[in-house]
Amino acid sequence: MTLATAAEPFRDRRALVVGGLGFIGAAIAKALVDGGADVLIVDALIAGCGGTYANIAGFADRVSVVEADVRNGAALPALLDGRDVVFNLAGKMSHLDSMEEPAADLQHNCRAQLMLLEACRRAASPPTVVFAGTRQIYGRPQYLPVDESHPIEPIDVNGIHKHAAEQYHLLYSRLYEFPVAVLRLTNTYGPGMRVRDARQTFLGIWLRALIQGREFEVWGDGSQLRDFTYVDDAVRAFLLAANDPLAHGRPLNLGGERTVTLRELAELAIAANGGGSYRVVPFPEERRRIDIGDFAADFSAIRDLLEWRPTVTLGDGLARSLAYYRSNGALYW
Amino acid sequence: MTLATAAEPFRDRRALVVGGLGFIGAAIAKALVDGGADVLIVDALIAGCGGTYANIAGFADRVSVVEADVRNGAALPALLDGRDVVFNLAGKMSHLDSMEEPAADLQHNCRAQLMLLEACRRAASPPTVVFAGTRQIYGRPQYLPVDESHPIEPIDVNGIHKHAAEQYHLLYSRLYEFPVAVLRLTNTYGPGMRVRDARQTFLGIWLRALIQGREFEVWGDGSQLRDFTYVDDAVRAFLLAANDPLAHGRPLNLGGERTVTLRELAELAIAANGGGSYRVVPFPEERRRIDIGDFAADFSAIRDLLEWRPTVTLGDGLARSLAYYRSNGALYW
Repeated sequence: MTLATAAEPFRDRRALVVGGLGFIGAAIAKALVDGGADVLIVDALIAGCGGTYANIAGFADRVSVVEADVRNGAALPALLDGRDVVFNLAGKMSHLDSMEEPAADLQHNCRAQLMLLEACRRAASPPTVVFAGTRQIYGRPQYLPVDESHPIEPIDVNGIHKHAAEQYHLLYSRLYEFPVAVLRLTNTYGPGMRVRDARQTFLGIWLRALIQGREFEVWGDGSQLRDFTYVDDAVRAFLLAANDPLAHGRPLNLGGERTVTLRELAELAIAANGGGSYRVVPFPEERRRIDIGDFAADFSAIRDLLEWRPTVTLGDGLARSLAYYRSNGALYW
Repeated sequence: MTLATAAEPFRDRRALVVGGLGFIGAAIAKALVDGGADVLIVDALIAGCGGTYANIAGFADRVSVVEADVRNGAALPALLDGRDVVFNLAGKMSHLDSMEEPAADLQHNCRAQLMLLEACRRAASPPTVVFAGTRQIYGRPQYLPVDESHPIEPIDVNGIHKHAAEQYHLLYSRLYEFPVAVLRLTNTYGPGMRVRDARQTFLGIWLRALIQGREFEVWGDGSQLRDFTYVDDAVRAFLLAANDPLAHGRPLNLGGERTVTLRELAELAIAANGGGSYRVVPFPEERRRIDIGDFAADFSAIRDLLEWRPTVTLGDGLARSLAYYRSNGALYW
């Protein structure tokens, strides 16, 4: 199923995208407006969260945007009014920030979610909510590929809070009887991803270095396994999960088209760029402590339930990403 | 091993009991001072948390008490100064409050813990920490008895936050390399337990009704299974867990001397009281939604590691509790 096909059921529906100026949020907003939905974006433009108007530059005239912080619940009833589906991408993803300022991470990733869910359950007609969870909550994998029943052992405060946020969603759905889907994302990449630093993914700074003709660094020994979901594939999962009751009430992993070592990924990126170089360097100490080793997601549950699978190859996705930043890099670095 | 024997290793040690005016915290403080420890209690005396000077009435002259709120981290470095062991019983346990004011529960159960752990890890010599977790995090049991690898599916916001707090402790212990024990308590009862309302346990209001010659209510159909730990047994577990590295770095269930139905418990309480009556009434609606059905903890892990087991029979513990409130009830109701 194409992204456009997945967006069709949203024609004339009223959607709210929380964190909609961020990388994935903006991509969801674009798919929805392309499909004929009425889209309201709310974003707090918090430093380090990735929200930027650059992400909606091509369709800003077709969405409404409200700058508001969902940690402050007062604004929410008006924003939710009449919205029948909420894509919830609020929150911070920085592992290092969460260790340096854990109380701030608590506000961003827990308080904000509680406020949003409280507003949803009190709405005249509670919406369907799709929440962006993360594979980070599994911690160091005890086996590969990691399925949804893998133990939850986050290796940073951010992972603890993202897990709490996921549990809020499932709890509110059970107690207050509105539909909720929780997707556990693995590394998501593509046009719009953060390229300024490694807060969301290291891949962004690799691509930026390649475009700028600089050598990039692979941390560790380069043998770590990772999987990557191209943003269009992730967006398709959000749209499918919103509409299918089979996806509601339980967490579902997304996954990658293939699993690669970081060295393989580096080589693929260089090939997609038509040249470049990298060097393998030891982990910085503060990174080593929170590195999870190898990771690969088992996404058979969502595949079986929704017939979702990644369709964009890693080589193709890297080429599209490089092309985007070659044209739009000035907006991002 | 008796409580006094378990307290011996604390002679001349400097202990901090956070939430030490509460039911279990005060009992730990008493055991420690009886064992010759230097004990500092910190308590915020937050309404509904159970903290009261009545709990330390018999030994208030032998402990230091500071009224401070650990949600505000500023006071902590001074309180932790030179303390080599921290018994952490900060937090709220009310399931209903957490659903009515989830953001407040977040502050009490997550922010407070983060502040405390941040202060511990920054201490010149980080202390050993023993955290009071709860079986509430398991939610409705998927099998009985419930061991520590049972899925974590809290049925209220309080349970989500208590689980996050437990994970903070284990994470900080791993990352910052100081010893942490996490005990998952089941229903703990005894002198000092809350008898004013059902915020911590329903058993307190049963005993109060018995003493006052009133009929008490058993909610549900009376067939629900529960296990109960007498407070002295729970305190002994805290003391043992503080001192034994085998207990560190992993959550450990406490459990009961036996598993009973609520009807059996009611009959035992009436027998211990030498008379009384109860009636079985349907769950109030807001309770039914968060009831967990049957529960019994598998405490074989702590039994095997620390040779801990409950030693006070339910009948004996109920009799001791009734005797305490018959003499001291005026301080509590």
